[in-house]
Amino acid sequence: MSFVPARTGVWLMGARGSVATTAVTGALALRAGLAGTDGCVTELPALARPWLPPIPSLVFGGHDIADTPLPKKAEALGAAGVLPAHLASALTAELSEVDAAVLPLPPSVDGIARDLVAFREAHGLDRVVVINVASTEPVPSDDLLNADAETLPPSSRAAWAAFLAGCAYVDFTPSTGARLPALDALAREHGVPYAGNDGKTGETLVKSVLAPMFAARNLRVRSWSGLNLLGGGDGARLADPAANAAKTASKQRVLADTLGYQPQGTTRIDYVETLGDFKAAWDLISFSGFLGTTMRMEFTWHGCDSALAAPLILDLARLTAAAHAAGRSGPLPELAFFFKDPIGTAPAALADQWSLLTSFVEDLSGSFPGAGEV
Amino acid sequence: MSFVPARTGVWLMGARGSVATTAVTGALALRAGLAGTDGCVTELPALARPWLPPIPSLVFGGHDIADTPLPKKAEALGAAGVLPAHLASALTAELSEVDAAVLPLPPSVDGIARDLVAFREAHGLDRVVVINVASTEPVPSDDLLNADAETLPPSSRAAWAAFLAGCAYVDFTPSTGARLPALDALAREHGVPYAGNDGKTGETLVKSVLAPMFAARNLRVRSWSGLNLLGGGDGARLADPAANAAKTASKQRVLADTLGYQPQGTTRIDYVETLGDFKAAWDLISFSGFLGTTMRMEFTWHGCDSALAAPLILDLARLTAAAHAAGRSGPLPELAFFFKDPIGTAPAALADQWSLLTSFVEDLSGSFPGAGEV
Amino acid sequence: MSFVPARTGVWLMGARGSVATTAVTGALALRAGLAGTDGCVTELPALARPWLPPIPSLVFGGHDIADTPLPKKAEALGAAGVLPAHLASALTAELSEVDAAVLPLPPSVDGIARDLVAFREAHGLDRVVVINVASTEPVPSDDLLNADAETLPPSSRAAWAAFLAGCAYVDFTPSTGARLPALDALAREHGVPYAGNDGKTGETLVKSVLAPMFAARNLRVRSWSGLNLLGGGDGARLADPAANAAKTASKQRVLADTLGYQPQGTTRIDYVETLGDFKAAWDLISFSGFLGTTMRMEFTWHGCDSALAAPLILDLARLTAAAHAAGRSGPLPELAFFFKDPIGTAPAALADQWSLLTSFVEDLSGSFPGAGEV
Amino acid sequence: MSFVPARTGVWLMGARGSVATTAVTGALALRAGLAGTDGCVTELPALARPWLPPIPSLVFGGHDIADTPLPKKAEALGAAGVLPAHLASALTAELSEVDAAVLPLPPSVDGIARDLVAFREAHGLDRVVVINVASTEPVPSDDLLNADAETLPPSSRAAWAAFLAGCAYVDFTPSTGARLPALDALAREHGVPYAGNDGKTGETLVKSVLAPMFAARNLRVRSWSGLNLLGGGDGARLADPAANAAKTASKQRVLADTLGYQPQGTTRIDYVETLGDFKAAWDLISFSGFLGTTMRMEFTWHGCDSALAAPLILDLARLTAAAHAAGRSGPLPELAFFFKDPIGTAPAALADQWSLLTSFVEDLSGSFPGAGEV
Ligand SMILES: NC(=O)c1ccc[n+]([C@@H]2O[C@H](COP(=O)([O-])OP(=O)(O)OC[C@H]3O[C@@H](n4cnc5c(N)ncnc54)[C@H](O)[C@@H]3O)[C@@H](O)[C@H]2O)c1
Ligand SMILES: NC(=O)c1ccc[n+]([C@@H]2O[C@H](COP(=O)([O-])OP(=O)(O)OC[C@H]3O[C@@H](n4cnc5c(N)ncnc54)[C@H](O)[C@@H]3O)[C@@H](O)[C@H]2O)c1
Ligand SMILES: NC(=O)c1ccc[n+]([C@@H]2O[C@H](COP(=O)([O-])OP(=O)(O)OC[C@H]3O[C@@H](n4cnc5c(N)ncnc54)[C@H](O)[C@@H]3O)[C@@H](O)[C@H]2O)c1
Ligand SMILES: NC(=O)c1ccc[n+]([C@@H]2O[C@H](COP(=O)([O-])OP(=O)(O)OC[C@H]3O[C@@H](n4cnc5c(N)ncnc54)[C@H](O)[C@@H]3O)[C@@H](O)[C@H]2O)c1
Ligand code: NA
Ligand code: NA
Repeated sequence: MSFVPARTGVWLMGARGSVATTAVTGALALRAGLAGTDGCVTELPALARPWLPPIPSLVFGGHDIADTPLPKKAEALGAAGVLPAHLASALTAELSEVDAAVLPLPPSVDGIARDLVAFREAHGLDRVVVINVASTEPVPSDDLLNADAETLPPSSRAAWAAFLAGCAYVDFTPSTGARLPALDALAREHGVPYAGNDGKTGETLVKSVLAPMFAARNLRVRSWSGLNLLGGGDGARLADPAANAAKTASKQRVLADTLGYQPQGTTRIDYVETLGDFKAAWDLISFSGFLGTTMRMEFTWHGCDSALAAPLILDLARLTAAAHAAGRSGPLPELAFFFKDPIGTAPAALADQWSLLTSFVEDLSGSFPGAGEV
Repeated sequence: MSFVPARTGVWLMGARGSVATTAVTGALALRAGLAGTDGCVTELPALARPWLPPIPSLVFGGHDIADTPLPKKAEALGAAGVLPAHLASALTAELSEVDAAVLPLPPSVDGIARDLVAFREAHGLDRVVVINVASTEPVPSDDLLNADAETLPPSSRAAWAAFLAGCAYVDFTPSTGARLPALDALAREHGVPYAGNDGKTGETLVKSVLAPMFAARNLRVRSWSGLNLLGGGDGARLADPAANAAKTASKQRVLADTLGYQPQGTTRIDYVETLGDFKAAWDLISFSGFLGTTMRMEFTWHGCDSALAAPLILDLARLTAAAHAAGRSGPLPELAFFFKDPIGTAPAALADQWSLLTSFVEDLSGSFPGAGEV
Repeated sequence: MSFVPARTGVWLMGARGSVATTAVTGALALRAGLAGTDGCVTELPALARPWLPPIPSLVFGGHDIADTPLPKKAEALGAAGVLPAHLASALTAELSEVDAAVLPLPPSVDGIARDLVAFREAHGLDRVVVINVASTEPVPSDDLLNADAETLPPSSRAAWAAFLAGCAYVDFTPSTGARLPALDALAREHGVPYAGNDGKTGETLVKSVLAPMFAARNLRVRSWSGLNLLGGGDGARLADPAANAAKTASKQRVLADTLGYQPQGTTRIDYVETLGDFKAAWDLISFSGFLGTTMRMEFTWHGCDSALAAPLILDLARLTAAAHAAGRSGPLPELAFFFKDPIGTAPAALADQWSLLTSFVEDLSGSFPGAGEV
Repeated sequence: MSFVPARTGVWLMGARGSVATTAVTGALALRAGLAGTDGCVTELPALARPWLPPIPSLVFGGHDIADTPLPKKAEALGAAGVLPAHLASALTAELSEVDAAVLPLPPSVDGIARDLVAFREAHGLDRVVVINVASTEPVPSDDLLNADAETLPPSSRAAWAAFLAGCAYVDFTPSTGARLPALDALAREHGVPYAGNDGKTGETLVKSVLAPMFAARNLRVRSWSGLNLLGGGDGARLADPAANAAKTASKQRVLADTLGYQPQGTTRIDYVETLGDFKAAWDLISFSGFLGTTMRMEFTWHGCDSALAAPLILDLARLTAAAHAAGRSGPLPELAFFFKDPIGTAPAALADQWSLLTSFVEDLSGSFPGAGEV
């Protein structure tokens, strides 16, 4: 460990999806001096550190089952307004280069692990973080506990392969991923950390600040109902009620965790193809205050999912790599700030998650004594 | 000091207004076992302490320039849905009793102070907290620095009188109140604390959690515009552009304080008589994220202003009385949680204000050694 | 026929429900001079006519399977803010009198018809309009075409009984009611008119003016999604997916009918008990204009369902009774203005429905030559 | 007159502004087969007629005081998402050609008239419609009645010049334009029609369908408040309170006209530069129904002003040219459908304006006997 930040690889499961392509295009744009760091929380003064692998130095590769090459996907995202169209054109060559490191998904866990090791060696990387941004999987039947590697869902097989290959693993999706006792043991055994699940980028993010507000004012939340309308690849997948169930459950959890009770109401996800990556979510909160007076708040969130998620992918890669370098293994509940359904025991209020995150970074600093201050 | 909580008086400037009447009715309802403590933050486990004067034990009095007696005002608030109509009927006698302690505003500072002393003595109170819930004053011309007591605006004259009489002072309005060097000196000289200004009960409350969310995610807030529609007594007064100016300025301050820059946009207040105490506020926030993608969030707040403000009046009375009992004098920036425009140096994010408040209460505990735990 | 308006009875199926109770209380309040005619469209200058049976003259009775007497139900609606609490108290005696005419639902169609005839005779009525405001029924299995009277759903049995007894029938619910060929034949045979279905009081009402606006401006509606949150008795029933299906289908129909194509998106109904009779609906419309630019509109409707529905019940009673008196039999598509899913061939745009309604009233005038002008 | 549609010129006052540039780019795109007719109401089956000058045949010219040439302005609008960026590139040559016909504003009315005549002759046009899409003017001082041509505001001088040159005049802005007795006389004397004022493209459009809905249901609108947030060139101008006043007055008029009374509340316009051409408007409507129950509706409109206005410019050119060809002179109240503040006596409800417009087109048909049906 030294003040020369380690060479870090980012292996994306679902590397040709919207989130992955936006993350890669953004990192390449930063490297080329064509973009700023808006949206990257590790660039905020409170978190920026010299020992975090710089975004421009990150090396990308990944698996996907889709064929559309990255430059073409970036062009489509440009046309849709997710990223500036001129960036997609300006970075065609660089995107093609990354695309060359996107491989078809091997059928076996060992095959996945071999690809990871090969990637690390080919690029002379100190370490690799595997990040799952593949399509959301259906909620699995509950007999996963005794499943062997090959019968697990893809996200868990990716985690398994990552751990075998000595790589950290981050699950940005609501899929099972590393959330199985056997995988937790494997991560500890191989000395690698993992984090997740389900990136928090919209309605749930807002909930994680509004629910604590109602709690701190001792206002009783009587109902909290929400409707999420989204198109895009992920939207189509979530139209499947089974996948939907995984997502909506993690979306209401923050309420019970923060308020101490579950208000009436549900959160729904509807697929509306024409909205593309630009999601709209509406939440209605009815609450009562002093002497029972009933009041209401509602909000609408018009967010671009991939633009919100992409910088967090870069943040998670940097922080998880640094935790790995610092010797951490097993779950990283300190990254709860980034997730709808954080692994391990972590606070649900965003402000508390933020405190936890800044302490985490402060503590890690001790592991990089030569690195100095930013 | 002992575990028998001190006898505490609450003197309301504007005692026949909506906020005051709702606060008094609520305290009487609690005493009679007719209502719960929703909305009272000092009843939350994190803040409840045996040494806080219990709400049912508070003794009320005040000044007002209006004639409508409290029972009649409570009845009107019941008809308007601000509080349950049956409470107003059930508590007529108790409200009349309080009304007997509501006096016309004396013309001189000394006269106000004499009323305060007389109130304290008549009821055998250990101390009295003066709380300003009178109509918002116009922004004063800027030559207040050298004004003498009798030429100051009413809110500052109330503070002056409070300090002379050895009473703590809380300003729940955006008026000048104790915010003058001469008054600060007077408070310290008489060994009394003061707090303010401008109770935070709606749009600004929401801003104080949403703005930190955008900041923590490194999202650039490009514009934040708001429209507040309100009727009621306070609404009519705020229709006056001069009073309005004081209020809207304190409403945007939280943005610059939290974000580190001032986004485009303004906050407006319009008087819409028919809305009565049920305010509606709409805010539109446009923000940009990674690679410049522009997104939007909007929220609508349908709140009952007096129902939101009243329990905070009781909280502020309890906390300020305890601070006074513990020997604190001068400003209480630790009460920033309650205010749009906190006195002294205090954080602007609600979560940070909450931490400050819980530490404050923790620290005060040391001053009440015999009180034990709740 | 003469300028003395006929004595008219209104028989409510579901007479102890929210809509029925609000309608009856309102009519009694009008009779007692305690309320105005806001919300009654037959009181607008464009529709008011001397030959319409005056609201105060209407005589009420009905069937219900619930026991809560009308005065108690009215009291509950008063406490919930659906109607003024003081009205419920002031009209206890009058409500009890109506309640005496609310009978348990007879098991047979003949039994229902007998109750109708007895009601007409007991009160010396010229005619009776049966209005279905009972709970929404599940969508029936599709073999109703050959069903006999006793195996039909309750709404159709009510229509059958009405026709047998020579009464007009109005279905304010999305249930099957008179919408069966056999019932249409029966109505014509007995010379009575019928109207329906599903009172249009909220989101669909708004759709019926906004959709024509987009159409008239040649703007392409790409998606229209909605979420309805409601408590109350009807909300609980609609939580049943089968009943829900009937309702949401009729809610999207207006779009295809007005725009000429079906935009993406669905309308959902969720039961949120705590909202009671005060529904909240949110709709998001995405549309594109000249050169493909995409835009959005959203609206939120916070309506009190029963307060919106009740005056329409009185309007429908008056208009249907007059049509009956004028000799009309079979469906009354001219009443499409009132319904989400109008019977017969009728325009879907509210403005066109309004024109149709005013012409209808104009035409009916010819049947009451002695009545003069209002 | 014959079935060969007349050659028609469109002279734009403010030809290099957003609305003008979007209208011209759109017409050129249609001519080149690169765009469809969404947003053009004269392309709807109810209005399309063979005798309307086809959009691709329109010949453009204009005056402006700005220098930015049309291709550059179109490029900027493309980057801002108002129109597709590729259209601006594809049509550079055609836009340059139109730009050659955009002249600096002559100092005298005669000079303007000479430019109009020269344009008509140079292009061999049968007639020219002058359309004012220049920046909104401040509300004039009220002594315009006796002003001579040269002291009138620019919009009125443009109308004067148009009439002198035998051209029809349309005012799409809230400026004075032709709304002066002297100008009305001049138009009739020269046998030319005129129309206006202030294109109806957003909040007011929605009001013109919602207000009639409340009226038709006999619901009492208690308050209607609105906030319009807009950037763009027009937004900057409207930040000027004087110009703002003209606009907000015309925005509330529709309520009094439709409801028969003026509800409480005002409409505001705020300039928020970062929103550019994408306006956001929020309206809150509080209303009461049967027995006084109070309810609320709110809507948010996220519209692209220029994309909404541009096709209407083409519609107005076509309809006004046809009216001129058919021998109409003086005001055209039948075009009220397009305007916030229609000239002459016209209904305020959109549906009634639509009926008036379709009758108008039907009537005009008689003047083009050879034209046949579309
Ligand atoms: N704001 C956000 O965008 C956000 C927030 C939280 C979670 N997520 C999750 O991130 C994931 C990616 O979202 P997206 O919008 O990029 O979706 P997407 O559909 O655009 O991309 C998913 C990609 O995964 C690939 N894929 C599918 N199965 C795979 C497998 N077994 N192995 C490897 N690749 C596979 C697909 O081919 C596709 O390229 C989703 O699971 C989504 O739920 C996104
Ligand atoms: N949520 C909230 O309600 C809220 C939040 C922040 C601030 N405030 C402030 O609280 C104050 C009270 O609000 P309200 O809704 O009760 O208003 P209100 O108009 O109902 O009551 C104000 C009372 O003050 C009295 N008054 C006026 N001048 C006085 C004077 N010089 N001395 C004594 N009494 C005087 C009036 O007669 C009236 O009874 C306002 O200044 C308001 O801006 C309220
Ligand atoms: N705005 C509106 O309120 C609105 C609009 C459109 C349609 N509707 C329909 O009107 C109906 C009434 O609504 P509500 O809010 O008054 O509901 P509610 O639940 O308050 O009342 C329904 C009543 O019907 C009675 N009932 C049930 N089955 C019956 C049967 N077979 N015969 C006789 N009575 C029976 C119930 O006991 C109850 O008293 C519902 O079907 C609803 O969908 C209401
Ligand atoms: N939806 C809409 O866009 C909408 C709706 C109603 C009314 N309007 C009105 O249309 C007008 C144009 O809107 P815009 O967004 O294109 O504004 P803009 O600022 O983009 O364009 C106005 C143009 O007028 C030019 N101009 C100013 N004074 C002039 C003069 N005296 N003679 C000739 N040209 C002059 C300016 O240089 C500029 O190019 C405004 O008055 C606006 O209020 C627009
Ligand atoms: Na909204
Ligand atoms: Na809203």
